[in-house]
Formats: sequence, structure tokens, C-alpha cells
Amino acid sequence: MAKTTASLPQGTRDFTADTLRKRNFILATIRTVFELYGYEPLETPALEQLDTLMGKYGEEGDKLIFKILNNGLHDPANVDKARAAFEQVIAGKNDKDLTSRALRYDLTIPFARYVAMNIGQLTLPFRRYQMQPVWRADRPQKGRYREFYQCDADVVGSYSLVNEVELVFIYSTVFNRLGIPATIKINNRKILAALAIACGAEDQLTPITMAIDKLDKIGPEKVSLELSQRGLQPGQIEFILKYLGISGSPAAMINEAEAMLGESETGRKGIEEIRFILDYVQAAGWAENAPAGKTAASLAIDFTLARGLNYYTGTIFEVKADGVRIGSIGGGGRYDDLTGTFGVPGIPGVGISFGVDRIFDVMEELQLFPDSLGAGPAVLFFNGGEAESRAAFRLMQALRSNGIAAELYHEAAKADKQFKYAEKKQIRYMISLSGRDLPPGHCFIKNLATGKQENIPVTSLVGYPY
Amino acid sequence: MAKTTASLPQGTRDFTADTLRKRNFILATIRTVFELYGYEPLETPALEQLDTLMGKYGEEGDKLIFKILNNGLHDPANVDKARAAFEQVIAGKNDKDLTSRALRYDLTIPFARYVAMNIGQLTLPFRRYQMQPVWRADRPQKGRYREFYQCDADVVGSYSLVNEVELVFIYSTVFNRLGIPATIKINNRKILAALAIACGAEDQLTPITMAIDKLDKIGPEKVSLELSQRGLQPGQIEFILKYLGISGSPAAMINEAEAMLGESETGRKGIEEIRFILDYVQAAGWAENAPAGKTAASLAIDFTLARGLNYYTGTIFEVKADGVRIGSIGGGGRYDDLTGTFGVPGIPGVGISFGVDRIFDVMEELQLFPDSLGAGPAVLFFNGGEAESRAAFRLMQALRSNGIAAELYHEAAKADKQFKYAEKKQIRYMISLSGRDLPPGHCFIKNLATGKQENIPVTSLVGYPY
Repeated sequence: MAKTTASLPQGTRDFTADTLRKRNFILATIRTVFELYGYEPLETPALEQLDTLMGKYGEEGDKLIFKILNNGLHDPANVDKARAAFEQVIAGKNDKDLTSRALRYDLTIPFARYVAMNIGQLTLPFRRYQMQPVWRADRPQKGRYREFYQCDADVVGSYSLVNEVELVFIYSTVFNRLGIPATIKINNRKILAALAIACGAEDQLTPITMAIDKLDKIGPEKVSLELSQRGLQPGQIEFILKYLGISGSPAAMINEAEAMLGESETGRKGIEEIRFILDYVQAAGWAENAPAGKTAASLAIDFTLARGLNYYTGTIFEVKADGVRIGSIGGGGRYDDLTGTFGVPGIPGVGISFGVDRIFDVMEELQLFPDSLGAGPAVLFFNGGEAESRAAFRLMQALRSNGIAAELYHEAAKADKQFKYAEKKQIRYMISLSGRDLPPGHCFIKNLATGKQENIPVTSLVGYPY
Repeated sequence: MAKTTASLPQGTRDFTADTLRKRNFILATIRTVFELYGYEPLETPALEQLDTLMGKYGEEGDKLIFKILNNGLHDPANVDKARAAFEQVIAGKNDKDLTSRALRYDLTIPFARYVAMNIGQLTLPFRRYQMQPVWRADRPQKGRYREFYQCDADVVGSYSLVNEVELVFIYSTVFNRLGIPATIKINNRKILAALAIACGAEDQLTPITMAIDKLDKIGPEKVSLELSQRGLQPGQIEFILKYLGISGSPAAMINEAEAMLGESETGRKGIEEIRFILDYVQAAGWAENAPAGKTAASLAIDFTLARGLNYYTGTIFEVKADGVRIGSIGGGGRYDDLTGTFGVPGIPGVGISFGVDRIFDVMEELQLFPDSLGAGPAVLFFNGGEAESRAAFRLMQALRSNGIAAELYHEAAKADKQFKYAEKKQIRYMISLSGRDLPPGHCFIKNLATGKQENIPVTSLVGYPY
């Protein structure tokens, strides 16, 4: 076989039928639930203005944005400006005379851009979902790609905590439908802010949040060390560790947090919000939401949840797959100002995201994909030569019209070649219109899994239980 | 309302719910038919190596490819090479030290690259379909965008003309299902080659094909003029015009073409192929394929069909929507060598493509989209305050569990505000748990289209005929 000269860019993948059917099963499940909750689809272009993206993802993020080279740089009218722009770029800056557009890096900023541009036409609260690939020039490694799907739902223009309750139900419904045992963890940024206030380090909120965010990975001792290096005193660190150690029933946890942090207005607000959500979720039928006879997703307070450095201001979420060693499979939270950076301030919202690649891996590990997803067409008609192939084609069209996927082998090859093709494509039945002792108007139908063969009238083919 | 500073790159679009539901209706219809015919999905990355794309689309095409700026150009290790590469680029060349990747320009070349890379693992004949956006730096104008969907099906590794027959049926089935009255036009590149041979201008095949390709737009007189400018003699031009004027029943057309072009081996082969396809299509039940009571797609020989400058070598297809003034809504053909350019020669195939944007426009013009596509959730629950909202939420969850999309208004706002929201979102029913004379355990349900309101037991909500 000749060897190709072609290759794929590092960190990108071709998706073949087997993988796509599984990924689309996940996406279709999520989409169905989003639609049941009144969320509307949105798709934004792969290309955004460079200005729209730059400066939104931190210094590290900026470096990972794929920029598009402007077209027509060799046009004499552009060359001088392009050369000056190029010098800016190799000095580590951006310049629109060399690249004025870039590839979508996430779905949140394009959504914010969309809301800012269309705020006058939107019916608020506006619920949208978006499932599209994003691109990042990250160093590729196992499980990390330069092109991958994101899958977000956000509602903007509402401060109501009922939105948080709905998002918790969306998470649990999706994971219950997929069969993934999952824990939805919830915390509130106001509680973290109150922690900084209560230990007298209000100005240290960001380093405290960043240190707490690493607890899972580095453990409490290294968190203490980091806090100490940041200049926090032993008493303050002890207070923070006490907070991080809060455990027990949800009610007990909330009470203990309230005792520690309830003196500040911010603390009271955070506690009140998390209590509201938990009460409401129970009142709204959390227990009944579990699928019959299956493990249901659970909801848990996690005061150690911090969700890194970002724009969240209230409730924060994170979802873990129970019993699977993999990072979070979902996350999100409430923000106060989605579109301020685009000149339209005062649009609050709350959103969640599904980690499609990790959900895929979890479902593979737990063998949760339905067997039927991998299958090829139901039927292959044997090609026994010119006249027989025409008769087979006609019958095949009747099957297809009735929703049964079918193929006719493309030429009158030897039988073993045709059977081998059927096997490789995971086709379940082989139908032949000729053969020894076949009564007129009949065909052979062979179940390729069991090897069982029978002859039936061709008029029974459409109604056959494939 | 504050004005945004944000904008979209020229030639790109945000797709909102209304448009997406319609586009997805088209894509889902095509996908279902592809799957019924045993075609398997494939998705390739948006980014390809620049080498994979350059030189495949002609000089004009090359200019329209979006190239990605390499990351890390400002790294001291890269700056010198990048500067040299930049000088190449402004001289109109390509250089991998500045841009080594580019955005997908169509689906055919990425498919060829995929086949070349995976030929050892593929079961031939390999049937794949692919529905993804592509990007072109074309000057934007009405109906022409820089990001748009393509939708292709190809079968490779088979010379059998039964593949052509199947693709004709795929076209007719899709357009019948969408309700679009369509004509599938068919011709054969071998017949055009035989035309050049028969008029003694074998070396002029390309200019003859290009001139014929313009017949629709410029008419026979200008085609004559162009042929004359290309150096063809009056006798030759007369012969070509006679060929272009062939009309009548399919059998009569084929016979006349045979009389004119049947002397060359190429001509006989082309005639034989087109005759085989037409006969087979009839034998396979073309007439029965028509949907009951609806206009069915028709199949017609069009000897003036040329399909521009490309790699087709046998059958060529083009589809027009009957009675709609718009370009072709589909096209394709047979090629001899898909992957030779990637070092893997000898892989023949045949494929078709659907013009999704134009199909969308045709369906809008003929009002063919089902009314139900535009609708929002079925139900909005009225928010009558804290306690009522919790009871409503519980009922809403029961509806959602039963596949009925529902929302609860996010806060206890005034009634007219809640009704206005329902109207804007095209919600069909408003349900309220409170109101005058409401018997215990009942709710009001109002049909927002008719204004009719009734009260029913809340236990009847799941079974209500929304």
C-alpha cells in the first residue's frame, strides 16, 4: 500500500463513525434536556474579531488564542502596514494590520458579545445553549486537544435563584439519563469573600481563592504553606483550615458556616443563597427526580469549591463522576456582569458547562453507551450479478423507505468477500435472492451474529423483525 | 440602552434559534437518508496543515484560504525565521515558519487526506458523509458568507455505477422528504471528452468544457464567440452547438448523442454509462419512489451540464429547484483519483453535495418548513410568589420528565409582564395555580393562541393535549 505524505495538525483529531455516534448520543441527550427547560440554541461563528477575544482569558489565555493572518498582505497597499504590524507581533503585541480575527477560544465571550450586540432585541431573561468546538494552542497531551467541544447553558437578565435550582436539575437530569453516577457540588463566592473578611484578610481574597482551588491537588498542608507565603498569619490560616474542614449533613454544614461567617453582610447573603437553593431543590421534588431503580445524581455542599480565577460572584457549581478518577465533568456559576467589557453593563446571569470529552471517557470506562450505537446498517443485500442486483435494489428501496438502513454490495464479487464486508461494517443481516432450493418469490435471510438462516417470502422483508 | 463596542467579522453570522431549528431540520433530513443508505459520518478538524490545502483549489482558491498565524513568533528562538517567512508572505508566497496551518476550505480535500492516511484500515467501498462548516476569505455579498455549511456524501474504492444510481436516489429521497420540487440533471464527462474528439479538438477539452459551463449564464451566442476566440473553427463550433441542442425523450437524446459521438471509445463508454444509470434507476423503482400525492423529484439528461473546472472524469450531477430562481442546490460526480495528490493513487469514487444555504432559501421561499419548528416551549407557569412558585416548579418537573418543554417565569412579576414574555417566546400555554374561583387541586390553563382558558385538575397536566 502506498504511504501518504499527509498529516494532521498536532492536537487535532478526525472523528469516525463509532466515536461520532457516541459523542452525538451525549450531545443529543444534553440538547433534549436544555430544550425541555426552555433554553434556545445559539451558534456563533468560529471567527471573532481579535479585539473581542484579547484580554478576556488572562495573560496565559491570550497566548493560546489562534490568530488568523489577514488576507492580501502582499498587496502593495498593505505591505508597509503589515511589516510594521509584524514587528509589533514579534515584540509580543497584537496588531490588527497583521491579524484582525481569531478563532473562538470558549463559548462564553462569544455569547457575551452576542448579548451585547443584540440586547435591544432579546426577551429577558434570555436562556441560550451552545454546543460548538473551540480552539486553543495548548501543548497537546493525553486528553488535551487543540480542538474540542464545549457545551454551555446560560440564562442572563435575571437575579432569581430559581435559575440556579433549574441548572442543578438540568445537571441531574442529564447525568441520570446518561446513566452516570454524579455528584453536583455547590458553593458560593460570597461565602469565600466572607471567609476573607472574617479572617481579616479581605484584600487577600484572590490568593485565598486560588490556594483553596488547589486543595484537591496539593492537600491542606501545602495550601497552608502557600497562604503563609502570601503573608497570612497562623491564626488566619487556622481559621481558613477550620472552614475547609466543615463537614456533616447539609443543614449542619450551613449552620457551622453561618456561625463562622455570618457576621458580615456578604456572609449572610451567601449562606442565605445556598440555603435557598438546597431548600427549593428538595421542595421541587429532588427525590422524585431520580430514575427508577438507578443511582441518581446527588447534590452536595462543598465549601472547598473555589472554581479558580474567574468572574463568578455568587453560586458556583462543579460536577464529579462518582468512582471515576477523572477531573470535573461540569462546572459553572453566577456572574454579575457578562457584557460590561463590551460596553453594555448590568447584565447578570448564571450558567453551566458540560465537559463533553470527559463525559465521553467516563461513559467508555463505565460502559454506558448503548450497544446499538456502534452498529452499521441492518441489512446487506448479496450481489449475485446484473439481473439479481436490480431486483435486490428494488427490495432495498422498500426497506429504506420504511426506515431500515440497507446496502447492496457494489459488485458481483465472491461470496466470502461480500460476507467479510458485512462483518467489518457490523451489518446484522445478509439477504440473498438466489441459492439452492429457494422457492419462487422467496429470499434467504441470514442473521450474521447467530449464523441462523431461513427463507422467507420477499413480501415479508419490510415487516421482518431486524 | 448602552451601545456595544463589539462587532462580528465581515461575512460571518450568529445563528439564532429560529434559523438553527430550520437549518437542523434540513441537516437531520439529509443525515437520516445518508444513514439509510449505509453512509457513515466523518468529522475532520477545522485546522489542516497548510500543505494539505495549498495548490488544491487553483490560484484563486489559494488566495481565499484563511491561514493561522503560528503561535510563539515572539519567542527569540523563532523571531529570525519568522521574519524571513514574513518576507516570503508579503512576496505572495507561503511559509510554514509564519503559518503552518489553515482553516478547512471544503470537505473534499480533508476527506481525501483522511482516506490517504487511513487507507489500510478502511473497509472498501467506504461510504462517508460529512456535514461541517468551511471558511473562505471571499468578498462577502448577498448569499455569500465567509463561514458556511457543506454537506457531502462520497463512496470511494468502487467503480460500480450502482453507486451513481444510489446517489440519484439519495437526492430524490431528500428533496421529496423536504418537499422541494427538484430536477436532478445528469451528464458524463466522457461524453464531453468525446465531443472534443469528434469535432477534432481533443486538445481543447478544457476550454470547451469551460465555455459550455457558462451556457446557462451567457447563452449560445456568447459561447460560440468564446469558442471562436479560443481558435475553434466554424464547423467545430456548429458541431458543438448541435450537441448542446439535443433534446427530446431520454432515449431519443441518448440515441442522438450516440450518433454524434459514438465513434470514439470514450464516447461509447460515456453513452453506455448514462444509459446504464437511467435504465437501472427505472428498474429499481423510480416511479414508486415518489411520495404519495406530492410532486416527486425528476431525473433528466442535460448534455449542456459541465460542472466547471474540476477533477470529475465520469458521471456528473447537478440539482435545480423547479420554479425557484436560484443557482443549483446540489452537485457532484465521479472522479478517478481522490488521493493521488497525497501519495496514495488509484482510489476512485463518486460523491454528491447539498447546498444547505440555498436549500434553506428555497424552503423559505416555498414556505416548506413545518410550522412547529419555530415554537418555543409548550408551557409557561405563572409565577405567583414564593410558595406558589415551588408548587409550580414541582408540576413543571413532571411535565419535563414526560417530554413537555416548560418554563416557570423567573420572578413574581406583574401578570402582563409574564404574558408578554410568553408571547415573545411563542409559548403556547400559560398555567396558573391561583386565581378567583379555582377549585382546590386545580389550575388554570390558557391557550395563548385562542385565548381560551379552562380549569383542570393539576393531576391532568401531564396528560393534557398541548
